[in-house]
Amino acid sequence: MTIGVCYFPEHWPRERWERDVEEMAAAGIEYVRMAEFSWAVLEPERGEFDFEWLDEAVELVGDHGMQAVLCTPTATPPKWLVDERPEILQEEPDGTVREHGSRRHYCFNSRSYREETERIVTKLADRYADDPHVAGWQTDNEFGCHRTVRCYCDDCADAFRAWLAEKYGSIEALNEAWGNAFWSQRYTAFEEVDPPGPTPAEHHPSRLLDYARFSSDSVVDYNRLHVDLLRERNPDWFVTHNFMGRFPTLDAYAVSEDLDLVSWDSYPTGFVQDRLEGEPTPDQLRAGDPDQVGMDHDLYRSALGRPFWVMEQQPGDVNWPPHCPQPGEGAMRLWAHHATGHGADAVLYFRWRRCLEGQEQYHAGLRNGDGSPDRGYHDAAQAAEELATIGDVDHVDAPVALLFDYDDLWALDEQPHAPDFDYWSLLEAFYGALRARGVQVDVVHPSADLAGYDAVVAPALHLVTADLADRLTAYVEAGGELLLGPRTGVKDAYNKLRPAPQPGPLADLVGATVDQHESLPPQIETRVRRAGDPDDTYAFRTWAEWLDADAASPLLTYAGDGVASGRTAAVRNAVGDGSAVYCGVWPAADLADDLVRPLLERAGVSHSDRLPDGLRVCERGGWTWVTNFSSGRYRIAAGDVSWLVGDATVEAFDVAVADDGIVDGLSVDRL
Amino acid sequence: MTIGVCYFPEHWPRERWERDVEEMAAAGIEYVRMAEFSWAVLEPERGEFDFEWLDEAVELVGDHGMQAVLCTPTATPPKWLVDERPEILQEEPDGTVREHGSRRHYCFNSRSYREETERIVTKLADRYADDPHVAGWQTDNEFGCHRTVRCYCDDCADAFRAWLAEKYGSIEALNEAWGNAFWSQRYTAFEEVDPPGPTPAEHHPSRLLDYARFSSDSVVDYNRLHVDLLRERNPDWFVTHNFMGRFPTLDAYAVSEDLDLVSWDSYPTGFVQDRLEGEPTPDQLRAGDPDQVGMDHDLYRSALGRPFWVMEQQPGDVNWPPHCPQPGEGAMRLWAHHATGHGADAVLYFRWRRCLEGQEQYHAGLRNGDGSPDRGYHDAAQAAEELATIGDVDHVDAPVALLFDYDDLWALDEQPHAPDFDYWSLLEAFYGALRARGVQVDVVHPSADLAGYDAVVAPALHLVTADLADRLTAYVEAGGELLLGPRTGVKDAYNKLRPAPQPGPLADLVGATVDQHESLPPQIETRVRRAGDPDDTYAFRTWAEWLDADAASPLLTYAGDGVASGRTAAVRNAVGDGSAVYCGVWPAADLADDLVRPLLERAGVSHSDRLPDGLRVCERGGWTWVTNFSSGRYRIAAGDVSWLVGDATVEAFDVAVADDGIVDGLSVDRL
Amino acid sequence: MTIGVCYFPEHWPRERWERDVEEMAAAGIEYVRMAEFSWAVLEPERGEFDFEWLDEAVELVGDHGMQAVLCTPTATPPKWLVDERPEILQEEPDGTVREHGSRRHYCFNSRSYREETERIVTKLADRYADDPHVAGWQTDNEFGCHRTVRCYCDDCADAFRAWLAEKYGSIEALNEAWGNAFWSQRYTAFEEVDPPGPTPAEHHPSRLLDYARFSSDSVVDYNRLHVDLLRERNPDWFVTHNFMGRFPTLDAYAVSEDLDLVSWDSYPTGFVQDRLEGEPTPDQLRAGDPDQVGMDHDLYRSALGRPFWVMEQQPGDVNWPPHCPQPGEGAMRLWAHHATGHGADAVLYFRWRRCLEGQEQYHAGLRNGDGSPDRGYHDAAQAAEELATIGDVDHVDAPVALLFDYDDLWALDEQPHAPDFDYWSLLEAFYGALRARGVQVDVVHPSADLAGYDAVVAPALHLVTADLADRLTAYVEAGGELLLGPRTGVKDAYNKLRPAPQPGPLADLVGATVDQHESLPPQIETRVRRAGDPDDTYAFRTWAEWLDADAASPLLTYAGDGVASGRTAAVRNAVGDGSAVYCGVWPAADLADDLVRPLLERAGVSHSDRLPDGLRVCERGGWTWVTNFSSGRYRIAAGDVSWLVGDATVEAFDVAVADDGIVDGLSVDRL
Repeated sequence: MTIGVCYFPEHWPRERWERDVEEMAAAGIEYVRMAEFSWAVLEPERGEFDFEWLDEAVELVGDHGMQAVLCTPTATPPKWLVDERPEILQEEPDGTVREHGSRRHYCFNSRSYREETERIVTKLADRYADDPHVAGWQTDNEFGCHRTVRCYCDDCADAFRAWLAEKYGSIEALNEAWGNAFWSQRYTAFEEVDPPGPTPAEHHPSRLLDYARFSSDSVVDYNRLHVDLLRERNPDWFVTHNFMGRFPTLDAYAVSEDLDLVSWDSYPTGFVQDRLEGEPTPDQLRAGDPDQVGMDHDLYRSALGRPFWVMEQQPGDVNWPPHCPQPGEGAMRLWAHHATGHGADAVLYFRWRRCLEGQEQYHAGLRNGDGSPDRGYHDAAQAAEELATIGDVDHVDAPVALLFDYDDLWALDEQPHAPDFDYWSLLEAFYGALRARGVQVDVVHPSADLAGYDAVVAPALHLVTADLADRLTAYVEAGGELLLGPRTGVKDAYNKLRPAPQPGPLADLVGATVDQHESLPPQIETRVRRAGDPDDTYAFRTWAEWLDADAASPLLTYAGDGVASGRTAAVRNAVGDGSAVYCGVWPAADLADDLVRPLLERAGVSHSDRLPDGLRVCERGGWTWVTNFSSGRYRIAAGDVSWLVGDATVEAFDVAVADDGIVDGLSVDRL
Repeated sequence: MTIGVCYFPEHWPRERWERDVEEMAAAGIEYVRMAEFSWAVLEPERGEFDFEWLDEAVELVGDHGMQAVLCTPTATPPKWLVDERPEILQEEPDGTVREHGSRRHYCFNSRSYREETERIVTKLADRYADDPHVAGWQTDNEFGCHRTVRCYCDDCADAFRAWLAEKYGSIEALNEAWGNAFWSQRYTAFEEVDPPGPTPAEHHPSRLLDYARFSSDSVVDYNRLHVDLLRERNPDWFVTHNFMGRFPTLDAYAVSEDLDLVSWDSYPTGFVQDRLEGEPTPDQLRAGDPDQVGMDHDLYRSALGRPFWVMEQQPGDVNWPPHCPQPGEGAMRLWAHHATGHGADAVLYFRWRRCLEGQEQYHAGLRNGDGSPDRGYHDAAQAAEELATIGDVDHVDAPVALLFDYDDLWALDEQPHAPDFDYWSLLEAFYGALRARGVQVDVVHPSADLAGYDAVVAPALHLVTADLADRLTAYVEAGGELLLGPRTGVKDAYNKLRPAPQPGPLADLVGATVDQHESLPPQIETRVRRAGDPDDTYAFRTWAEWLDADAASPLLTYAGDGVASGRTAAVRNAVGDGSAVYCGVWPAADLADDLVRPLLERAGVSHSDRLPDGLRVCERGGWTWVTNFSSGRYRIAAGDVSWLVGDATVEAFDVAVADDGIVDGLSVDRL
Repeated sequence: MTIGVCYFPEHWPRERWERDVEEMAAAGIEYVRMAEFSWAVLEPERGEFDFEWLDEAVELVGDHGMQAVLCTPTATPPKWLVDERPEILQEEPDGTVREHGSRRHYCFNSRSYREETERIVTKLADRYADDPHVAGWQTDNEFGCHRTVRCYCDDCADAFRAWLAEKYGSIEALNEAWGNAFWSQRYTAFEEVDPPGPTPAEHHPSRLLDYARFSSDSVVDYNRLHVDLLRERNPDWFVTHNFMGRFPTLDAYAVSEDLDLVSWDSYPTGFVQDRLEGEPTPDQLRAGDPDQVGMDHDLYRSALGRPFWVMEQQPGDVNWPPHCPQPGEGAMRLWAHHATGHGADAVLYFRWRRCLEGQEQYHAGLRNGDGSPDRGYHDAAQAAEELATIGDVDHVDAPVALLFDYDDLWALDEQPHAPDFDYWSLLEAFYGALRARGVQVDVVHPSADLAGYDAVVAPALHLVTADLADRLTAYVEAGGELLLGPRTGVKDAYNKLRPAPQPGPLADLVGATVDQHESLPPQIETRVRRAGDPDDTYAFRTWAEWLDADAASPLLTYAGDGVASGRTAAVRNAVGDGSAVYCGVWPAADLADDLVRPLLERAGVSHSDRLPDGLRVCERGGWTWVTNFSSGRYRIAAGDVSWLVGDATVEAFDVAVADDGIVDGLSVDRL
């Protein structure tokens, strides 16, 4: 439960450093991340190293009772290196080279760049192997940021062919697995398979999915190179990587397997503008969307099933979203508490001080360019004090699992079948309904052990193997409650359709099959009604499946007098000691709540009344965080509880922490 | 009046084929199209051929009393061929190569690809020259799909120069014809003329028009290569090509001249989304727009003046439009009847069975992936039965010709002069008014013999030669009724303006000239009023010409108090035994009807009351098809008529066929 | 006060020329611009020159009492030259070459093209050095049109490195000035610095700003090459260049320093569509926006502080905007008067006659393609007559300066911080308020001598040096009235943030500093209220700064209950004999007026009541032009004044000219 900060001493005069570090310590900061992007400062010319400045900075941090987190500086190879070995640069599908001048311009599969990486990481790790002030390392920075996971250079082509040969053994097996009889796409040798370049029509979906997997695996490999070199030098160091929000192209589960600690970079008012569907509300522009942020917290917490860090926490206004509104009063403190409630053990603000030069000039820090405190500084210091008072807290124990699979994301992104079909948004429809009931949610891969969860929600389990179907069936038979969303059970592991009707191997568990699917634009009315209750209708959007119930009981049928009228839209099937619900539509909020609430009740999961937008609660280790991402004021009807932070009246963008679990039956009133 | 299907036996286990073919025959199917895209299956490696599977499939089809239509598989050159001869690939204007991985990646002017085409087509034609079950051939597939008519590679540059040298004889003649004094664009030799690449400002319109013509001619040549090889082997075969809806870059008239049979691929709920202006209505999303589909039927029927085929008929939901709604109940049957009413002799559904692999996984077939019947199957079988009952029907005898010229389309596409000026939409404004009066329309090239038509409508005869003006004048003098739309008579054959005022050589026939034109965005009010009747106003859109009437009588003047107020917008001029109407604005529906109805009356063309949107009637050979593309229910007030299919009450998405011509004076009531 | 025309004799048969020139003279035309784009006609093959036609044309012009203005024809190198020396072509950042086929395809830094330029300009200048009918020259045409200022070819890379070496002396100085420690961007040699190509993330803002400056400087150099060659041959010629409206990438001040006369090309109904924020109104589509046109007049007048020319005046409808509405009745005359009122001494219409060939076929001329008069002809002839009657008029004497700096424009364009932040629009917010009060405004560079101005308005003085701050302080201390807008004083000359709070070196003058800034989308309410007056609120948009007043008095505070509520939005600080107002928001029209009106009053600047949109007045040399860009009718309450053109009732799109200054206290009534 600690606060930290990201610091770039190399941007400031050395005579200022001591005062900076003193002020950090005074604010209650415990961790200082440094050396990110510093390659050209550490090695101004090939072989000419300058570590002195970093030695001094680390020592200063240690002298003030804090710990340093260092970074491998590989996200920014210097220009002398690029000019010497231009083959390290990424290429677009049409061969356009991504040049020097920003960051992340190197290819993960570049043989040259792996040599250079090994050289600089070894040098750094050797230098600080015995330094008592270095707690651990961050590898590189935000792998995949700026759409850089997928490169199309010659090194990638070679590596892709090797990856395919390793996976399929023979080209005939690949032709068979992908289904290359279609459009004369069969290959006679692995050497014929290229990265997917510019083509007149769309690419083969199986080829695209394997390129997505290969690209993500390339990052995993590249990260492991760092991890191995660092661990070799000092096995006591923790090694982490800072993921950048929710990333559509990189499998965070796979990268995390090589890490000791998962961390991520949280920019609530940025992400609400650049990766959430629709126009953000004024409140969201001031504090972000708690469910968008929360789902990321939960994803990264679940990746290793351990407390995570926020490695970069938005400190104020930031430079890169479309608009840059000032966060609401107290939002920077709110975010630290919210992260902690979701399972963070440390929150590091990015950055200590507003940078005067380069691309991030308009990015706030805790301190202004002249060193004076900025808005975030006071919030950070208050959060540090409050979290120190609370002390250590147990790990989050979530009763519900949300299944999330990058393969599904990639397959659906390639074939969305509707311009407004976005996999993340579909996840949020279900996740948001759970969080509006105050439930903690693990966001886990379908291969995770589900036995400990009271309920499992799978919004779009698109690629389903027989093994997964067996595991889900066993889960339900043993008393588990399962909720499945649309587009489930459509494809095999190679992104091919199954001959059997959807949901394929899950048909028995669900007790129904899908007769037809359709995607629908807004001008077509989209409503379902509760089976047997003609007046009770709910809105849905974008996607509709017409079900044929077999063993299952219909829950919802299509309303209106259109072509789907009267067809079944959702079913429930009791199996063993549990049951499975299959919902063939993308539910709007009211419907999502009416699917989730009965699920929680059947599963015996404690939950609150339906909470207002923006207000969210988190139970963790016997504490409850009430976080208000809205400008409304609320009274928490929590009965007799003691508040360590705040109280039962929660102001705009405020937080309250109770020393008890208060979610069960909780109700909230707007003031 | 038959039904067929497209089949890809190579996608399925051989042991399934017999059952598939049996089920086809049972459904009343008569034609089975095969071998499209099958090059890599037919020739897995250079010179290693495998025809056995196709032999067997053709034999199975024949054994079940059906006939095979085979395809030259050139739309998809295999990867081994591309790697061996990469010069066959298309290039974008900026030199980007269109790579292997989808389809249509070859250049029509590639010398290498013409060699390879000759090789594979000869091989196939030789193989099946004596096969009694092969009725005919489709060349390639959907020439020009995915914007592939225009390529910019070196072979194209050479071919373009040769094409220009052939057309103009000397470079001075080209400089003169194009008008290259403008912006120093004169050439000193044909070798200097390149395909139009990336430039700071827009290209010379005469150069663009000739590149459009050259590109289309390249496809014509390439198609002829197939046709000649096939005819040489077996002159009894019919040879066709399947055009893909309305194509903006390929002259279907010119390609058709080399064919025995014209066919096209009809996807009503796809095309209504991706090539019709504006947002489709819910009904259009369920069944398409009957006038959009109908105009394509009429275009391809008119290309050779003979019954056409629908080579691919949408069988259910399809994968490629923005959204993929399920067609209305019965729509797949409706489309087959509608095609027949417009002059189709065969309708082949695409495809037999939903494909499990590759790019078209989400494209329905008549049968599901597991072989069970899908929605379209029942519709297709019913259509087959009904059409068999009707039997052979005479060719459509259309009283009205709509003039359509690809040169005009290309010239106006290059210089639309308004973002919302779309040549097809302007055609539809007039075509729709004719069809709403139940009139059959031939969509013919202006060079067609017009003597047989009672009336001729030319929505935008943009490039007009003196010869065409003479022919139209002769037509009117002999009693013809001519309706001309805006932007008529603006340019010469080289896409240069004429010095004389618009409509240039048609000025005498029209009895008026154009003083000014303007394009208008929606925020400017656009209304005209009937001359002499200040209260009777009509909306128009996008385009306005201010006419100076000479011999002609004003029909319409501009309403409002703007700069055009009181100027003449349309005139009628009596010439010889007929008359010419010139309308200088793009009419909205009410105005279009008020232009078309008097025209039909003067021309003595039988017509109905104005039919509601979505409901259309077609007379063909003594029968009348009533087709309902809407969710409304209608009663047909047709008097005493016998219905072979349905009856006078036409349900949503339903069809009725009367054994008489019932259009004259027909009225319809909404139920 | 004269009228001229642009003429392309090479587009027409020689036998027509004499009649054309006669008709020009008859219309009162005094100047005829020729030879633009004529390189391929003047030199059809390398070394084969044909000047005869131009000799004859110039002689004809002279024989009819007019003067010729000739153009260096370098905007359109012929194809033979491009094929011989392809290295002259421009390149996009990704290396795509901009090919022949339109215009402006050459690189300003091409060594080869500078040789060719010298060759053709010398040849032409020699030819006409002693011709009595040639009054002067236009260099090239519309430098930078079609986004051609910035090229990325190898010649540019070399030139950029040399430019940087010249500017910074050492690479360490550059690293320091830009701040290249950020993201490892330090260089070890100038050879490492490339033009900014494609990169994963955004570029370093200091690098971008210097590339913008270098690119603009390249045009300045290239223009000077023309100027020097021409002056050398005949020092009596004037040399001008025709700027194309407001150009975002070329520093018109810097180019103008080498010219004798500044001219520009004015297309009111085009520019209102393609470079003004928002949807144009119907009136704007008919006549343009008088403030958009007026600000360009003022910019080009102020560049040399001398009367300017409109070298191309829109003559009717034009081909290149999205829509091409006909101008309102009389608009072509209105524009000539409006230009004169803003300080033009000559207005040349583009072009004499509608061109029948090439890219500008749909561009009107004063005469139609057949030579008959078009709408603009009558307007031009009337304007010529009226302006001749008025005779010579003194130069505009503007009491107010608006500060405009291309460096600020470029810096803000690179980091707008909001999608709707447009520097020109912000300028217009202040400029429009001044013009709505009838005030003449010089648009000058911040380095201009301000002593003569009663008031100075600086809407966004973004990059501020200590020297500029000193000069502005001295201006105010001496009694000047200064109004500063938002985003002022943010950066140093290298596009780096200053460590001191905004407005940096202006903080003392302003008496306040900026605590926070934010950019705001429309869904957030944006209002301020007058300090001390809670009910009087004003809308603002896009940008907000929260001020801490020190010596200054608050003028505005933020309204509402959001995070900024109650913070200061604008202040006024009395300094010496004057005062400085700092406004931290982008004012909507009412607020802009309430900032500008008190400023004018304090400064003692005569001004009118607030004029209606579209109606504007200009005082020049004792005359007043009243120009009505709207379809409304107005009565001018100007008291006893004599009207040389029109009278006190101004009709739609009409003009009136009074022989007195009537702005002070002027009021206007809508009829």
